Amino acid sequence: MANTRDDFNHFHIMHTRWMDNDIYGHVNNVVYYSWFDTVINSYLIEYGDVDIHTDPVVAYCVESQCTYKKGFAFPEDVHVGLRVAKLGNSSVRYELALFGKNDKEPRATGYFVHVFVDKASNTSASIPADVRTALARLYR
Amino acid sequence: MANTRDDFNHFHIMHTRWMDNDIYGHVNNVVYYSWFDTVINSYLIEYGDVDIHTDPVVAYCVESQCTYKKGFAFPEDVHVGLRVAKLGNSSVRYELALFGKNDKEPRATGYFVHVFVDKASNTSASIPADVRTALARLYR
Amino acid sequence: MANTRDDFNHFHIMHTRWMDNDIYGHVNNVVYYSWFDTVINSYLIEYGDVDIHTDPVVAYCVESQCTYKKGFAFPEDVHVGLRVAKLGNSSVRYELALFGKNDKEPRATGYFVHVFVDKASNTSASIPADVRTALARLYR
Amino acid sequence: MANTRDDFNHFHIMHTRWMDNDIYGHVNNVVYYSWFDTVINSYLIEYGDVDIHTDPVVAYCVESQCTYKKGFAFPEDVHVGLRVAKLGNSSVRYELALFGKNDKEPRATGYFVHVFVDKASNTSASIPADVRTALARLYR
Repeated sequence: MANTRDDFNHFHIMHTRWMDNDIYGHVNNVVYYSWFDTVINSYLIEYGDVDIHTDPVVAYCVESQCTYKKGFAFPEDVHVGLRVAKLGNSSVRYELALFGKNDKEPRATGYFVHVFVDKASNTSASIPADVRTALARLYR
Repeated sequence: MANTRDDFNHFHIMHTRWMDNDIYGHVNNVVYYSWFDTVINSYLIEYGDVDIHTDPVVAYCVESQCTYKKGFAFPEDVHVGLRVAKLGNSSVRYELALFGKNDKEPRATGYFVHVFVDKASNTSASIPADVRTALARLYR
Repeated sequence: MANTRDDFNHFHIMHTRWMDNDIYGHVNNVVYYSWFDTVINSYLIEYGDVDIHTDPVVAYCVESQCTYKKGFAFPEDVHVGLRVAKLGNSSVRYELALFGKNDKEPRATGYFVHVFVDKASNTSASIPADVRTALARLYR
Repeated sequence: MANTRDDFNHFHIMHTRWMDNDIYGHVNNVVYYSWFDTVINSYLIEYGDVDIHTDPVVAYCVESQCTYKKGFAFPEDVHVGLRVAKLGNSSVRYELALFGKNDKEPRATGYFVHVFVDKASNTSASIPADVRTALARLYR
């Protein structure tokens, strides 16, 4: 999949924390997924009118993946590109690429799949209309 | 405050994770508080019949503190002593000490204060009876 | 890939922490990768004679993935099955499955790829002999 | 101690992550300490010329404390005020206050004590000159 900055129309800057660095002086591989999670949910809240405290339909992660090419280290910022690769009735597949401030090529790329679920019945649900509109804007 | 193993009648073993180690090769100072949190809540769930998913009265942390004497490093286990130092109507002050497997002296000590709150009204509430009984057993 | 308990000959029990639970009451998807990381590195340290503080050759994660089927929640324990699916000259692909205490079917499965690197030159290195022996024992 | 915004001359904005929220919908108490850690080390790196990867003298946390008055929740930002309350030969005591974007009163306050240590000998060391200059500027 193509992953230069031009392949994304939405970017979000993530910030490193001191404790993100592991014993080898790089941000630990696990932390990258917290950036995925944070960028995606921030988008849903800001653009899709999602309220994580009260919405009856919520999004659960059913799959995620990351390929690591070059590391990040605190106190660096991370420029995250986000796009939607598949938009189904009740699920969405996001693709992400992580860039350093001046990088043209990503240091890491990955994907993340959300399934929307009715919290009360714990069964899959259609993506709410506002969310769908917001996600469609990220489709490339 | 006295903090040998004899000063505690409840112990809980915590486990380190790879990412707990920071760039200096020790468990990061922040992680100690996740052990405090976990030991205390585990005790409340196991002995105080607390259900964190459904209970109307929940416990919020209003203060915590830790003094660090000697480090831990992944993959070491941490032996946590827990006692109750003050048991009020709606609040409880825990004291904790963290030992290595064969240590007589703690590597870190600290305290943690819970206030019980009615979730719906967000006002302080009396400690539920089962919880109080469990906490009283830790009082020294 | 087959992922019953019988498909693994090494198991490691991971422990949840209070803060692992997210706003929906389940362990957050990110935390699963810290279990992957911890189980794998614990194995390398215990069986492959790895010293993460001083070894000249270290293992970096270059890819990881997880499929989530059913959640975990604090204070549950997680039974992690670990096997080696590919063992190259300088890289290894692990496969993992996460079971609840009494589960026959995994609640999550995933993989994790380590590349061994000479820390000083930052170039790939052959897997050290003791590590290779330990990894070969997990090959299925 | 006085803790309005006027009592601090250095501010740093911290960002919440999705997984910081706990089961009660607030940022977990543990996370506050990662903000303390991050704000302090960011300051040392930016203004005190600290290189956490190569410096022979490093700063270890020997004590920390936090008082929680009102919660934060993802995706809120946190405005952290930082000052130096005591500046010794080899140690420094920081005081911090955490504000919401429009808050006059802090939602949490705390302190954090660093001791400077010679990494090779693991004995306490004088605060390096550049660091001392930077810290003196935060003294109030």
